[in-house]
Amino acid sequence: MTVEPKDEHYKEKVISSFKSQKFMNYIGAQLTEIKPGFCEIQLGYREELSQHDGFFHGGIIGTLADNAGGFAAYSLMPPNTSVLTVEYKLNIVSPGTGEKLIAHGRVLKPGKTLTTCSSEVYAVNNENKKLCATSLMTLITLYSEEK
Amino acid sequence: MTVEPKDEHYKEKVISSFKSQKFMNYIGAQLTEIKPGFCEIQLGYREELSQHDGFFHGGIIGTLADNAGGFAAYSLMPPNTSVLTVEYKLNIVSPGTGEKLIAHGRVLKPGKTLTTCSSEVYAVNNENKKLCATSLMTLITLYSEEK
Amino acid sequence: MTVEPKDEHYKEKVISSFKSQKFMNYIGAQLTEIKPGFCEIQLGYREELSQHDGFFHGGIIGTLADNAGGFAAYSLMPPNTSVLTVEYKLNIVSPGTGEKLIAHGRVLKPGKTLTTCSSEVYAVNNENKKLCATSLMTLITLYSEEK
Amino acid sequence: MTVEPKDEHYKEKVISSFKSQKFMNYIGAQLTEIKPGFCEIQLGYREELSQHDGFFHGGIIGTLADNAGGFAAYSLMPPNTSVLTVEYKLNIVSPGTGEKLIAHGRVLKPGKTLTTCSSEVYAVNNENKKLCATSLMTLITLYSEEK
Repeated sequence: MTVEPKDEHYKEKVISSFKSQKFMNYIGAQLTEIKPGFCEIQLGYREELSQHDGFFHGGIIGTLADNAGGFAAYSLMPPNTSVLTVEYKLNIVSPGTGEKLIAHGRVLKPGKTLTTCSSEVYAVNNENKKLCATSLMTLITLYSEEK
Repeated sequence: MTVEPKDEHYKEKVISSFKSQKFMNYIGAQLTEIKPGFCEIQLGYREELSQHDGFFHGGIIGTLADNAGGFAAYSLMPPNTSVLTVEYKLNIVSPGTGEKLIAHGRVLKPGKTLTTCSSEVYAVNNENKKLCATSLMTLITLYSEEK
Repeated sequence: MTVEPKDEHYKEKVISSFKSQKFMNYIGAQLTEIKPGFCEIQLGYREELSQHDGFFHGGIIGTLADNAGGFAAYSLMPPNTSVLTVEYKLNIVSPGTGEKLIAHGRVLKPGKTLTTCSSEVYAVNNENKKLCATSLMTLITLYSEEK
Repeated sequence: MTVEPKDEHYKEKVISSFKSQKFMNYIGAQLTEIKPGFCEIQLGYREELSQHDGFFHGGIIGTLADNAGGFAAYSLMPPNTSVLTVEYKLNIVSPGTGEKLIAHGRVLKPGKTLTTCSSEVYAVNNENKKLCATSLMTLITLYSEEK
């Protein structure tokens, strides 16, 4: 799907919003790509992010899936709006093992009020990229008068 | 639903599993109650856990919902098993604002292989508890020969 | 949750909307209770509604869950609006066996634009009511100028 | 994803299972394609399948999404097994208007016990195919000793 962004500064606004999320900085996540309707986030492994088996914690996997989809949606929203997650569903299909997670968020259907996105999270092990989780989600556009 | 736990040491095993999740310690989450089929987790506000508006990040809300449900499920599993999240779905119904989050996980249907749970996350503001998110999820029991 | 309906004719409008859904009539579903923020639908077993094992088909279970939640949401919406399902998630926790299905839909959080509901579907076997499925869903209010 | 089916008679077993679902026949659904890990189902419009605006009912859309994913999963399962839906989540992204629905189910991750699938439902209007709904779901393999 090639779509025209409604905000010519879509890249700057996504980068700025990402930076203002202190939790992204706290876990060490990096915004590595932003295109109209697409967003990539990467996160290197650290012990602090692990669950009981030493793998990436499911909450971290969900965080990346949610954020990658949310920023993909935000990239297509008009100026003077903000984005909120209405809901997301995450299927974890294999353990989050490896040195890095890569999340790809994609807009499936943009809309004036609601946007539907999917995202995939891959676990990278010695440069071997394996599907770890897949997600389907709904985002809402908040226009500035509603903020 | 009152159910008999299949493991008389269910409390110890949940506490020990929670402690072994380094991510829980990193964000400052505390396991505050565990009963057969029920789990409560609390998390105090810190700036590092916030999104762009300064509220608790959606990933944090999802993490608590997932973990509270997962440990509720684990409390009913037999000895020599472990628990993995298959999938969860989270609806964020109001912003995560306040000084604390409280997550309640509950088993809706235990099973030999699969367990269905729900969880609610409340945001606490001046002792005023408000529903912030609700979740529905599937967990799988791993028997030790499969580990 | 006790809530005041915004439309004094909420009962009539839900009944009328239910009747206008030809698919409800086709499968034989009946609207058996409507209160502010709550809806019950019942459906007797017929062979035409079955899957390969002779149980109620999962699509039928999902249909009831979706509709019970949708009408629960609609009961709280203001006059001159209509309701659409944004998304729903259904966990089937036991087979749909028995002479009847009963679906209960409930509003968890009403909102101006979005409403979050849950619903449960029970399978009734010799008057023995057993949880068959549980659902979590998002509905949107369409105001008449948007229709 | 190209995968080798574990059952050389995968086509016959899917066709036979589809035929044994009386509900599929009742609504007039047709299994139009089956490949390893993929399934297509089509359904022509009939008034009996409509909701209050005359569109395809959401329950019908969910039924097709669930079934297309379920049979895609079943096509990869070994002989002497059957398939059950654990859960599915459906996002309806545009109304089900038109003369026909086409559902595509796809295996994202096959597994010994659990299979993760996605499906898309398209509404066809004057041969114009438009995305109507997207779904993410979990299926379980039942081995014959468990049946």
